[in-house]
This record gives sequence, C-alpha cells and structure tokens, in this order.
Amino acid sequence: MKEIQGGVTAPKGFQAASCAAGIKYKERQDMALIYSEIPCRSAGTFTTNLVKAAPVKWDQNQVSSGHEAQAIVVNAGIANACTGAEGMEYCRQTALAAGEALKIPAESVLVASTGVIGMQLPIDRIAAGVKKMASSLSSSLEAGEAASKAIMTTDTKNKQIAVEFEIGGKTVTIGGMCKGSGMIHPNMCTMLSFVTTDAAISKELLMEALKEDVKDTYNMISVDGDTSTNDTVLLFANGMAGNREIREKNEDYNQFVKALNQVNETLAKKMAGDGEGCTALFEVKILGAEHKEQAITLAKSVITSNLTKAAIFGHDANWGRILCAMGYSGAEFDPEKVDLYFESAKGKLQIIENGVAVDYSEEEATKILSCPEVTAIADIKMGTASATAWGCDLTFDYVKINADYRS
Amino acid sequence: MKEIQGGVTAPKGFQAASCAAGIKYKERQDMALIYSEIPCRSAGTFTTNLVKAAPVKWDQNQVSSGHEAQAIVVNAGIANACTGAEGMEYCRQTALAAGEALKIPAESVLVASTGVIGMQLPIDRIAAGVKKMASSLSSSLEAGEAASKAIMTTDTKNKQIAVEFEIGGKTVTIGGMCKGSGMIHPNMCTMLSFVTTDAAISKELLMEALKEDVKDTYNMISVDGDTSTNDTVLLFANGMAGNREIREKNEDYNQFVKALNQVNETLAKKMAGDGEGCTALFEVKILGAEHKEQAITLAKSVITSNLTKAAIFGHDANWGRILCAMGYSGAEFDPEKVDLYFESAKGKLQIIENGVAVDYSEEEATKILSCPEVTAIADIKMGTASATAWGCDLTFDYVKINADYRS
Repeated sequence: MKEIQGGVTAPKGFQAASCAAGIKYKERQDMALIYSEIPCRSAGTFTTNLVKAAPVKWDQNQVSSGHEAQAIVVNAGIANACTGAEGMEYCRQTALAAGEALKIPAESVLVASTGVIGMQLPIDRIAAGVKKMASSLSSSLEAGEAASKAIMTTDTKNKQIAVEFEIGGKTVTIGGMCKGSGMIHPNMCTMLSFVTTDAAISKELLMEALKEDVKDTYNMISVDGDTSTNDTVLLFANGMAGNREIREKNEDYNQFVKALNQVNETLAKKMAGDGEGCTALFEVKILGAEHKEQAITLAKSVITSNLTKAAIFGHDANWGRILCAMGYSGAEFDPEKVDLYFESAKGKLQIIENGVAVDYSEEEATKILSCPEVTAIADIKMGTASATAWGCDLTFDYVKINADYRS
Repeated sequence: MKEIQGGVTAPKGFQAASCAAGIKYKERQDMALIYSEIPCRSAGTFTTNLVKAAPVKWDQNQVSSGHEAQAIVVNAGIANACTGAEGMEYCRQTALAAGEALKIPAESVLVASTGVIGMQLPIDRIAAGVKKMASSLSSSLEAGEAASKAIMTTDTKNKQIAVEFEIGGKTVTIGGMCKGSGMIHPNMCTMLSFVTTDAAISKELLMEALKEDVKDTYNMISVDGDTSTNDTVLLFANGMAGNREIREKNEDYNQFVKALNQVNETLAKKMAGDGEGCTALFEVKILGAEHKEQAITLAKSVITSNLTKAAIFGHDANWGRILCAMGYSGAEFDPEKVDLYFESAKGKLQIIENGVAVDYSEEEATKILSCPEVTAIADIKMGTASATAWGCDLTFDYVKINADYRS
C-alpha cells in the first residue's frame, strides 16, 4: 500500500469542481461537487444525533434505497439543520439542479452541508453554484484539492489523502477529503468526509467495510464532545480499477479494508489535529484492556476531558486528570494497577506505576508535552485489548472561535 | 422558612475554626475544622468516580458504619487522590490527631481534601493545623465564614447559606458551606459541601433526605463535565434544636426536606455560578417531559455542551447548539416540537417554535444573554415532568486557569 498525491479525484473516473456561491463566506469558495463518470455503489454513515440535518436525512434515504449514486453537492456556511420541511425541499431542489446540469437522475445526487444551524439555504445561489460547477468538472489533482478547500469552515487546513494498492495485478485507488473542526465528537462529527474509490466491490461489502472502519477512525476522535447534527461519511465506489469484483471477505477484501482504514484514520487524525483553536493533536492509547469496548470507553473519556485538554495546552503533565477521566468513564478497571506514559517526538516517559506517581522529571515531561503531537498511553493490565482515540488541546482560541462563530 | 445570616455555625452547637497550615497556598488559610459540641448523626454522598480519593473512602466507611460523627477536617491544595496506601494512612493520622485534640474518638472524625491529584499530604503540617484549630473553635458566624474561605481552591467567592424554620414550635436551623469550582460535574463534583443542622432526625431519614435531594441539586450542576475523585457532601445533625425527633415521613420531615433543598440548591447554584473562569450562571430548564429522567438527561446535556457554553460567553443566541446538545443526549424527543426561550433579569424571549426559529430580535436576545444569570427554557411538549440544571459559560479564563493549575 502506498500513499500517493491527491484526494477524491485520485481514483479513476472521479472529477471535482468548486466555486464561490456566496452562501455566507466572502471572497472564498464555499461549494464543492464530486462526480463519478459512471454510476457508483455508495455507502454512508451518519450522525446519531436525534436532531438530524436535512441533508443527512436525504443521504440516509439515498444510501439505503439501493439507487446507484453519482454526485455529491456540498456547501459550507449553512448547515441546513433545524430547517423543517423547507430545508428538506432545498435538498430536493439541489439534487434536481445537479441532476439536470449533469444529466443524471436526481436520485443519484447526494448533498451535504456544514455551518450555522437554523438558517435556510439561499437556494437560488446554491442552484447557480451547482450549474457553474457542473461545467467546470475536472479529474485533476488541483480540482480535488480546491474542492477540499471549499468545504472548510473553521478548519485552518484542507484535509485529503489518497492511497493505492493492487488487487490481482490491477491498481486500485482510494482517495478522500474531509473537514472538521468544531462540533466534533462523531458518533458520527460536523465532520463531513467523502471517500472515493475505483475498486469494484459489492454494495454489501462496501457498506460493511465502511461501517466497521468508522468505529476505529472517525468515531474515535473528539474536538469538543458535541456530536453534530450533520456528520456524514460517504464512500463511492465506481469499479473503474477493473479489479476482480470483491464479493466475499477474502484477501482482496482485507486489502481493501486496510487501505480504507489508512484513508479514514489519516482523515480522522487530520480533523482532530486541526480541532478548533488547537495547538496539538492529543492521542490516547489504552492498552491491556479486557475487551475493546472497555478500551474505547476509557480512551474517549480522556480525550473529551476539558481539564485534561487544558493541561495538554499548558504542557502540564497533570496525570491526575487523566486517571480521573478514566475513573468517571463508566468502564471498570483497577486504578491501582494503571501504568501511564507520555510520548512524543521528544521521547517517552513513565509517569505513574500501579496508580501512583513514579519519580519522573517534570522538566522532561514538559519537553515531551511541548510537541505538536502528544500521546498518553495507559496500560490497565487486565487483558490484551486496546484502542486509540484522537483529540486536541483546549485553548483560548477554541473559546474565541465559539464565542462568536455566528458573527 | 427564612434565610438567615451565616453558614455551618448557624445551627445550635456547631463550631468552626480555620488556619494557614502551609499545605500549598501561601499567605492564606487552607484548613478548616467543623465541630459539633455533641455527637451527630451523619449522612453523606460521594463521587461515583471509580478513582476515589482516600478521604472519600474514609468518609464512606464512617457514614455507613453507624458510628456517630462529631468533626470534619478539611484541607485545600492537595486532593489526597491517587495516593495509594500512604494516602489512606494520612486520613487515619488526621483523624487520630483531631480525636486527640478534641477528646473524641478518631472514628467520629471525617476528613475531606481538595486540590491537586497525586501528591501526598504533608502530614506533619496537617497534624499541626488540626491541633491549632482545635484550640480556636468558635460558634461565631465569623468562624463559619472563615472556614468557608479556607476550603476554596480556584473559587473566587466563598459559599455559604443558612435557613431556619419551625417544627412544633421549635426553631430548627440548617447551615452549609461548599467549594467549587473546577472538575465539577457531580455525580457527585471537587465539590465539597458540608451541611450542619440542629434538627433531631433519625439516621435513616437523614440519609434518605440527603440522597434524594442531591439528585435535584448538586447532581444537576456542571462546570466542565469532569466528575472529580473527591466529591463529597456531608450532612451532620446534632438534634440540639430540641424538636420532636423526625422518625417518619410526616409534615415535619417535609419541612426539613424543603429547608435542606433550599440550602443544597443555593450552594449548588453558587458553585455553578462561580465555575472556573465563568462570567455567567447558566440555567437550563426542560419542561413538558414525559418523565423526570428524560428531563434531567436533556438539561445536563445542554449545560455540559462546550459549544453552548462558549456561545453563552459570547452572549450569542446560538440556539442550534442547544437543540444539537439535546439531540445527542440520548433522550428521546421530537425536535420538531421543541419551543425554546431565553430569560434573564432583562426579560424573556421566544427563540424557536416547533423546532424552527421564530422571527426574534437578535439585539433583544443579546441583551437578555448579557446578564450574569441566564436561563434557557426548552418545552418538549410530551408530558408534565421537568428538570433544572445549572452550569456556566466557557471562557478564556477557564482555559487559563486549567492550563497551569499545578504551577
């Protein structure tokens, strides 16, 4: 498996476009279109928030309908959430506009929105944007990159990745792009992630591969503990790699799953590392768990602890907050058996052994915690299961961004 | 029922003292002693965190043992949590020192600590402090006030209250003091709260009254979603009011419960309103719930939402975040039936009706949200149950305080 340049346009047959539709942001692109030259099998995972944005409902329906999919229209600035029947109607009108411009059925168009909750989309500008993008589609890496920038909200960096691998002598490619960076606590975050592949794979296995992988990737990140109304991951497979179709869980499937995991994990980590206002990616590994669910619960409790996140911002080895967050997670373990380490590019240091502090150097710990990527490793010594979660520090800028997001 | 001056020394027979033991803070008092002239019935509720501080274990044992209780020794600066067998031994030594100085059994001494996790107590200074305080006990309101100041950590205000009411012609008093203000998400928060009363009441009813009331008061506040290792509420009743003993759930009991609720709710709100770095007390009322558990889940989800809290700091009527937090709470409701209002001393304003925004004035909303006490009221129109939770805004100062709490 090899990481290659590009994002959603890296797999064969995928094109992208973007434009400045003037939805909310000024002087930047705020709409993107992803298009496959031929119809695709689609899979999707969506927010578990009871308050679901209109585009989430639209896509859930599309993905489960069995219809093939061929395009995704995305806008940044307005979330189209809490918008009632009017919001649903705008999803339909967006799909109709795209269907007409691309000469494909409206049922094969998916939509996604991110931004402020509660405002209605300016549908005329959306429709005009769709038309403009349909006439400027390109399979270039630049077009993919521009699309990944157009969907940003408070993100500071665009986020994409592509990998390639072989199935029976045929090169298969998976590419993806996503945006963070607030209201991120996916179960599914507004996290929008779009993954394309030219792999030939059955709809059932495509859906299963995505569903399983999301548990270890997007669902293991958190910026602020707020699960968005709009979280969406869409995976399109158009089969143009020409590989023998993956119809069962054989070695080909395993290869595909491994590549998909690399794409999803990379995108998920990019989102956590670009969390609103953050200065560091904070990784938490739980080792020695009895079972995976326990490890997941512990890891997620630590990355969502405001006190721990503030300590990471302060480069403070305040390990008591980590143990505290593990303790209130709801998972069972023996606090007096826990070993804890901090690790980064600057080294690895044991902080506690069997629940109490070892004689470590605070200076050394601060050095390790001053890196842009910091890991806490807790071994609970009960078994062999493990889990990794990714978050970020809690900073002044997080507060600044969210105290006046709407203005 | 009448609110009166004072705190823990307001009920008959209770005394308090405080001193500067030099545990961590410089140039301020950091230990307090509460003492009853005669043995008391005690009740307590404690953190549900699996990682329990040594004093929590000590007190749980004391309260459930059936021993009468007569004194509480409290220190600020070091939490005595994650301190292993050595930490437990220091609880015992503290109780022994107090027992000796006060000429009471060590089993009747309770202990409480708040501060940094993982450091050991300087037991010599603790023991010296206990001795000093035992010789300076006083039933004056000033002594109670000084004690409420000595237990503060990042609190900006001391917190106390006392109320009096009558049972069969006898005046009964309940007084209390507590400290917040970070790692506050009680289930039980480090929240320490000490309530004294001269009521004569059976141990069973004392425990039940506290256990029930905690659900509506301390367990309904959150500063940061982090449930501390040290949360403790202790309630001492010495019977010196001379009322006919409360032995059953009659009108006397109802009177007592009502007064206890006023003390606990006031202390809980004071903690939320003095949350680390906060500029506003944020109250969330859920109305029209099918059952109370649902209302509690919804109210707590909103007060713990970082995004909502940051919006309150920004005086931004970002109602979508409130609906979002309700949606991911896990409680069932119909988002398209929700009515939402903001209320404060500056007025009351409807923001959404049946899940979508009404045509409200942003200017008016900002005015309402600029008060030091702000309420969001959500009516989910399913039934008649309700719940109220209290939190605070998320500010730059919260981050500042917690990025360098240990230094």
